Order: sequence, then structure tokens, then C-alpha cells
Amino acid sequence: MSGAVADLGLIGLAVMGQNLILNMADHGFTVCAFNRTVSKVDRFLENEAKGKSIVGAHSTEEFVSKLKKPRRVMLLVQAGKPVDDWIETLLPLLERGDIIIDGGNSHFPDSNRRTKYLASKGLHFVGSGVSGGEEGARYGPSIMPGGDEAAWPAIKDIFQSIAAKSDNEACCEWVGDEGAGHYVKMVHNGIEYGDMQLICEAYDIMKRGLGMESKDIADVFAKWNNSVLDSFLIEITRDILYFNDDDGTPLVEKILDKAGQKGTGKWTAINALDLGMPVTLIAEAVLARCLSGIKDSRVKASGKLEFVGRTKKFEGDKEQFLADLEQALYASKIISYAQGFMLMQEAAKEYGWKLNKPEIALMWRGGCIIRSVFLKDITAAYRKDPELENLLFDDFFNKAIHKAQPGWRDVVAKAALLGIPTPAFSTALSWFDGYRTKDLPANLLQAQRDYFGAHTFRIKPEHASEKYPVDKDIHVNWTGRGGNVSASTYQA
Amino acid sequence: MSGAVADLGLIGLAVMGQNLILNMADHGFTVCAFNRTVSKVDRFLENEAKGKSIVGAHSTEEFVSKLKKPRRVMLLVQAGKPVDDWIETLLPLLERGDIIIDGGNSHFPDSNRRTKYLASKGLHFVGSGVSGGEEGARYGPSIMPGGDEAAWPAIKDIFQSIAAKSDNEACCEWVGDEGAGHYVKMVHNGIEYGDMQLICEAYDIMKRGLGMESKDIADVFAKWNNSVLDSFLIEITRDILYFNDDDGTPLVEKILDKAGQKGTGKWTAINALDLGMPVTLIAEAVLARCLSGIKDSRVKASGKLEFVGRTKKFEGDKEQFLADLEQALYASKIISYAQGFMLMQEAAKEYGWKLNKPEIALMWRGGCIIRSVFLKDITAAYRKDPELENLLFDDFFNKAIHKAQPGWRDVVAKAALLGIPTPAFSTALSWFDGYRTKDLPANLLQAQRDYFGAHTFRIKPEHASEKYPVDKDIHVNWTGRGGNVSASTYQA
Repeated sequence: MSGAVADLGLIGLAVMGQNLILNMADHGFTVCAFNRTVSKVDRFLENEAKGKSIVGAHSTEEFVSKLKKPRRVMLLVQAGKPVDDWIETLLPLLERGDIIIDGGNSHFPDSNRRTKYLASKGLHFVGSGVSGGEEGARYGPSIMPGGDEAAWPAIKDIFQSIAAKSDNEACCEWVGDEGAGHYVKMVHNGIEYGDMQLICEAYDIMKRGLGMESKDIADVFAKWNNSVLDSFLIEITRDILYFNDDDGTPLVEKILDKAGQKGTGKWTAINALDLGMPVTLIAEAVLARCLSGIKDSRVKASGKLEFVGRTKKFEGDKEQFLADLEQALYASKIISYAQGFMLMQEAAKEYGWKLNKPEIALMWRGGCIIRSVFLKDITAAYRKDPELENLLFDDFFNKAIHKAQPGWRDVVAKAALLGIPTPAFSTALSWFDGYRTKDLPANLLQAQRDYFGAHTFRIKPEHASEKYPVDKDIHVNWTGRGGNVSASTYQA
Repeated sequence: MSGAVADLGLIGLAVMGQNLILNMADHGFTVCAFNRTVSKVDRFLENEAKGKSIVGAHSTEEFVSKLKKPRRVMLLVQAGKPVDDWIETLLPLLERGDIIIDGGNSHFPDSNRRTKYLASKGLHFVGSGVSGGEEGARYGPSIMPGGDEAAWPAIKDIFQSIAAKSDNEACCEWVGDEGAGHYVKMVHNGIEYGDMQLICEAYDIMKRGLGMESKDIADVFAKWNNSVLDSFLIEITRDILYFNDDDGTPLVEKILDKAGQKGTGKWTAINALDLGMPVTLIAEAVLARCLSGIKDSRVKASGKLEFVGRTKKFEGDKEQFLADLEQALYASKIISYAQGFMLMQEAAKEYGWKLNKPEIALMWRGGCIIRSVFLKDITAAYRKDPELENLLFDDFFNKAIHKAQPGWRDVVAKAALLGIPTPAFSTALSWFDGYRTKDLPANLLQAQRDYFGAHTFRIKPEHASEKYPVDKDIHVNWTGRGGNVSASTYQA
């Protein structure tokens, strides 16, 4: 009666898992649903899943028995130990060639480890990023699978069928070895943190800097959604700002300003620090969430720390300023994506992965939270030149960033003068001004390190001499005191 | 002939190790010197150590035999595996009650682990931060010991004798359990990264923004060194900027602007992210080093990315601007230290350590790289109120930050308009403006997360109602589509 009827089995019936199952069923696949708390299976089968090609199971044994071979088991459970626990539970029930797919937000080193571990058991592991929230999962997410490539032919059809489409291309391609899928999803989420922070700063500037009402701010986002900023996050921001509570006032103004921060954004920032890549915008976005998190402390501080400045309120042409703000948001976003692609480029080098940049941009064009017209332009840039060293070197973005600069600078300056915090706008501009600078003041920093710690420095090639040759570690006795021993074992 | 003559044995004869030995000898202690490459021992004994109460050894057995009991062995070797290797080498030669002190820049989790490991062998481990570079090590460093407190009575006299003195108090006190000493040293180094970056930004603004010569910039730092900014790093910056190469031009301008970044600053930033504390200034300082590090990419970018802005060059009162710049540096520094102390406070809570804040400030007042008049003011603040929640709530710093604000804002604004990168000045100001804000725009962010991922939000207490009670996770169906399942297992 039961028989191996299902093309794929999915474990974990929270909103993402349920919606992925419904999506697969819509595309003609038969799916077996399972959950640790088994009552959830029955509830799902009796409600959302009713009348669809969805079967359920009440034990792992029954679950596995209902899967066609090679068995495809997808986990949509909390990242971390639950994934390992499920793998251990499944291992004795599966056989050589079967596939376990982890569709949660796992940390990429875990996926590296699991790929090797399952290979040692003769099974194929796939670590797949899935983005798009509940809507995306239901009607077409962005899917970023990586791991054991031998599994790809067996899951490609299902994954590409249920994925979002952008200009008729599925937003799902094989990303790369081991944890590469989860890595790219991690960077995606970091960029999502950045995009959200930038939108929040623009909203705050309009609200507190210009004294605008939610409805009027919504109008601005609505307008921006028809420009280069056209994107899912701008669109939902518009909707949120228009959304009134029962009393006719905007619900958003009643929501507690305390954002969670322990997740993939943090991982991206830490990974950037580990790889020595200056991914400043995501880092600031994560830290801004941390600052929002210490609300009690901020409430106290708000009573003790007042604004003092020479500019008391916004003066100038409001329409011009709103146009500048749009450019500031656009330019900062370009910087954030440029930083994100630099990070992935470095990671591919560091971890020995092949990453296909045009296809990453393609996967992010539709389905996921950061989907936008913008990503079509990025896809175009990388398709034109897959070896493009930096997004800012592409003609389209190069022109865009030059055009945006004057307004961007004015917004950062005015926000500083008016006392509106713009950590993401500001760091983007500082990064841009640093990146385009041949000679940064780190020469002084190196001199300081050599002065106090004998850490040595190098000479600029154009100033090399017999005394100070190029590529040599140089220590100078700055004080006339002390020795000439350099700090071979002591790092500041 | 050999006999147990030495009060302490020190392994690792690079500049820090040698200078600490000479310092101990100056204070009447007999020290046994040892090094993996034994020829270094002889060279040291025949030169710098000649005529002092310093003995050497040519094998670990001889080394240990020359130490009085309880044996005190101090390691000044590269952090990481070398420390573990030396511990394993020493273990069979030491006996119950002996002490191993790691004086390098070890990562605090390693010191946590080593404290437990040595305790299991009946030995006492001390992980001690030592700061002050070669000069400090030689004539009085700041020393931050933590670990097994049972060791403290046996090393206190030596450590406090050789430590720097500030107003007759030794810049060395017992910090706390396990890795607490190395933790505090790590934060010290993070703050050092921040201080150095702030100075570099001030220098860059004067050099490129105002077009000043090195000598004139040195004059400004000389003046600042007689103000609230009076500190070791300002002093050496002055000296460096006055220091000319043989051809009569400033040496600093010839130094390659590429700073190393893999060290304790990075650890501090990562730890802040892990603890969810918004330590933005150190993070930006570390990332600024990363950006300096990709010089090749910057050189390319400098040919492709031009400055565009409505302000072409500095206009205004230069003297006023320099006064503003001093205030910007001072205010940003206050923010950085406030962030650093917030981090240590959170770490003490997280790791269950007792940390004595007045004594931490005291230890940093003298000897170390960040020593300054400023730290006397911090010590005073925490002595007045050891439970002070935030440095900015102390009267002295509260007045200072209010006074500094107008100039600080103008500097950040002008730098943005002129195209000079100020990641640290800017993030400090954004953080300040965020921290003093009761209602940040994270309400919108929480709405977005609930919109696309059903992540739920909470209501501001002042807007609580029967429909939206306080402390309840709320999910709203923003679109009218989709279900009401919240995302219990899926985190964005």
C-alpha cells in the first residue's frame, strides 16, 4: 500500500518546509512530508496538503520506505546540531547513492564537513541555500546548491522547476564544491542585512531629518521602486509604510526597534575579517542591529546625551535632497555588492572553489529577498566579463557611481550635521574614497608600529633606494635609543 | 656550579623577551634566559646581558635546574602552537606548584584551555598580556595577568616591580580567571588599532584635505600632545612626522601604505560580533587595515574612480577646522573606549569573570601603547563609580562629548564632501547618534523580516494593546496572501 511513491522526502514542517513541499507538488512531483512532532504531519496533510501529490509518514522508517531511489531527503530544520542528529538518524536507513540535502541556513564549514562525512559513507550531501522567505518558498525561491556534485543530476529537475524564473532562466544553478552553496547563501544574507540597513537609514533621514510622515515616505519608496532601485525590499518597504493599524495609524511606528543579529550576517562579517577583506557595509549593518538590540541602554542614554551642532534643522531644497538620497542609497548599494563579490572571489581562492560569478548574480535576480533590477545589471556585467575584477570597473556601474557621488556626499554630510546616524551610508562612502586612493595614510600606521614595536615596514617602490630596497622588511631606530632587534615573534 | 639561582626563567629571546629580562635584572631579580636556537642565548649573554644578574642555559633540563622553586617559567614566543609545544616540553621537567606564564599575545580561549590543562597537572598557568613594545618591555610595560590566581602571590612582586608606574601605582594588577588577562590585552590592542586609525585619518585630512606639509602636521600633533589628547601615540606621531630621511624629506612619506591586519584587533572585532556588542570603531579600524592591504587593487581603482563632488577644496577658517579636528579625534576616542569597556562588561557577564574596571584603566595608564592622560580620566571615572554603566554617563566625559560634538560633526561632513575617507571618525559619530536615540529605524527592519520571513516582531510598550500585547511575538499578514505559520525554524 505504501510503496516508494515520492520523488523527494522533506523533513521539517515549519513555514519554509511546508511551502517548499506545496511548491514541488504544484510542479508535479510527489513529496513525502515528515516532522519530528508527528502530529504536524497529520495537520499538514489534512489542511494545506489536501488533494495534492503529498504523502506523509509517522516514522523515519515509513518515511524512507516511501522514497523512490536514489532517495532524496531534504532537511528544513534548525541549523546546527539538529542537522547532524537527522543525518545520524537517517544513515542506517539509507543506502549507497542516496542523497541528503540540507536546505537550512547552515554555516558553510559544517557543510564542508558533512560533504566529506557522507561521502565516506557512500552517500551524497548537498548543502543548499534557499532564499525568498515564505512567499519565495511557496511560489519560487532562489536556490543555491553546493556539495557533492554527483547528486546534481538527480535533483536538478526538481530544484530548477520550483525555483524562481528570471527572464525564463531558473534562479538555481550548481554553485560549487562542499559548502560553496551555503557560503554564497551566507553572503546573500549579509548583503540582505546591508540592503535592509540602507533602507532603514533612508527612512530615518526622511522621518527625523525631514520630518516626513510614513505615508509620504511610502510615496518616495513607491517612486524609487520605478527607478534603478526597483527591488523586492523597496517594494515591501512601501507596503509596510502604507500599512495602517486598526486605529488608522501606521503599524510600523508601533513596532519595537530591536532587531535580532545572531545569524548569517554575523558569519559574513566574521568570515570577511578572517579573510582580511574590507567588507565594511555588512559589518556595519550587523553592528547596527547589535546597537538596536541594546534598547534599554539607549533609552537611558537618550536622557543623558543631547544633540549639539551648528546645524539645527534641515535647510535647503527638499526635492533635491530626496533625489540625492536616492543616489546615496543606490551608490551605497553598489559598494555593498562590490564588497560582497570581492569577498566571494577571495573565498573561492582561499577554499579552492570554482565560483561562477555570472550565475551567482543570476540566482539572486529572482526569488530571493534581495531580488532586483539591480541584479540584472550585475548579471549583465559579469556575463560581459566573467573575469571582471571589480563591479566598479564595469562601465555601467562605473558611470552610475560617478553620477551618484555628489548627492551621496551631501546626504552623508547633512546626516552628520543633523545628528541622524548613517553607519552604512557613511562606511560605503569612506570605503569608496579609500578604495579609489592610491596612497592611504597607512604609511603612518606602519611607521608607528615600527616605532613602538620594531614591527618593520616596507618602502614604496617609487622611493626605493640602496638603503631602503623594495620588498625588504625595514626597521628604523626612530628614537636613537633602544636596540636593533626586530620583533620576529611578537605581533601587535 | 649551576644551582637554582634564578627567580624566573624566560624562554624566547626576541626583542620583547630580551628587554623583559633586562628589566627584571635592573630590578634585582636573577633571570635565566633560554631560546630554541641556543646560539641566541650566548649572543645575548655576551652582549646586552653582560654584567647583569642574568644566566643562560643550553638545554631545557639545564634551564629548569637553574630555577628557584616554585619554578616560574615565562614564555615570550609566538602565540599558538609554539606555546603548546613549550608547555609539553616543560611538563615532564616541572613539578606540582610550578608556574608557567605565557606573556605573548595568545588568544584568550587558548588561555582558558591552558589554565584548565595545567591545573589538571597540578601546575599553575598564567596568561598575561604585556604591552609597551620594546621600550615598554625594557623600562616598564603594562602587564595584565590572569589565569590561576594561586600563582599570583609568587609572581606579583616581580611583575609589579618591572611594570610601568603611574602616579606611583604599578600598571599591573591581577585581572581575573582563565583567559581574562589575555582578553583584556586583546581589547587593549583593539583599542590601539582604533587610536592609530583615528590618528591616521586626522593626518590624512590635514595632508590631503588641507594640503599641509609633514612638518606642519607634526606641529599640530605637538600642540595636541599638550592637550586632552596627550598620549604616547600622539607623541610618536609627532616624532615620526618630524623624522627626515638622509635626503631631508620626511621618511614617513616613503613608507608603503599597507598595514598588516591578522592579529588581536581582528579577534576583538570577531569577539564583539560573537557577543553581539556594537564595537564599531575597532571593527572599522581593522577593516581599514584590510583595505590598505589590497594596495594593488587600490592602485588600479585609483585610475578608474575619480572624485566627483559639489565641494572641490577646503574653504573656511583653517584654524577653526584644526580645532574641530582635535575635538573630532577626542570625541571619537571617547566613543572607542566607551565601546571597549562595554565589550569587557559584556564579556565578564558572558564568561563569568570578575573584571575590575578601575584597575583595567589603571593598568593602561602607563607602560602600554595606548597610555595617556585620557586613561587617568577614565581611571578617575571608574574609581568614582565602579558600577558606572557607560563612560559617556560620567560627568567629565559627558561634558567632553557635548563640547566636542559641533566640531566633530563638521569634520565628518567636510571629509565626506572633500572625498577623504574617515571610516573611524564617521562610525564613531554614527554610533553616538544611534546610541543616544531612543527610537532607531530598526522598527522598519523588524517589519521587513516579518513581511518576508514571518520572523515576528514585538510591540513598543507604549503602543501595547489587547491585540498587540507587550513581550509577545507578533506576526502580521502584511499582504493578505500566505499563511499564518511563523518561521520557528528558519532564521534570516
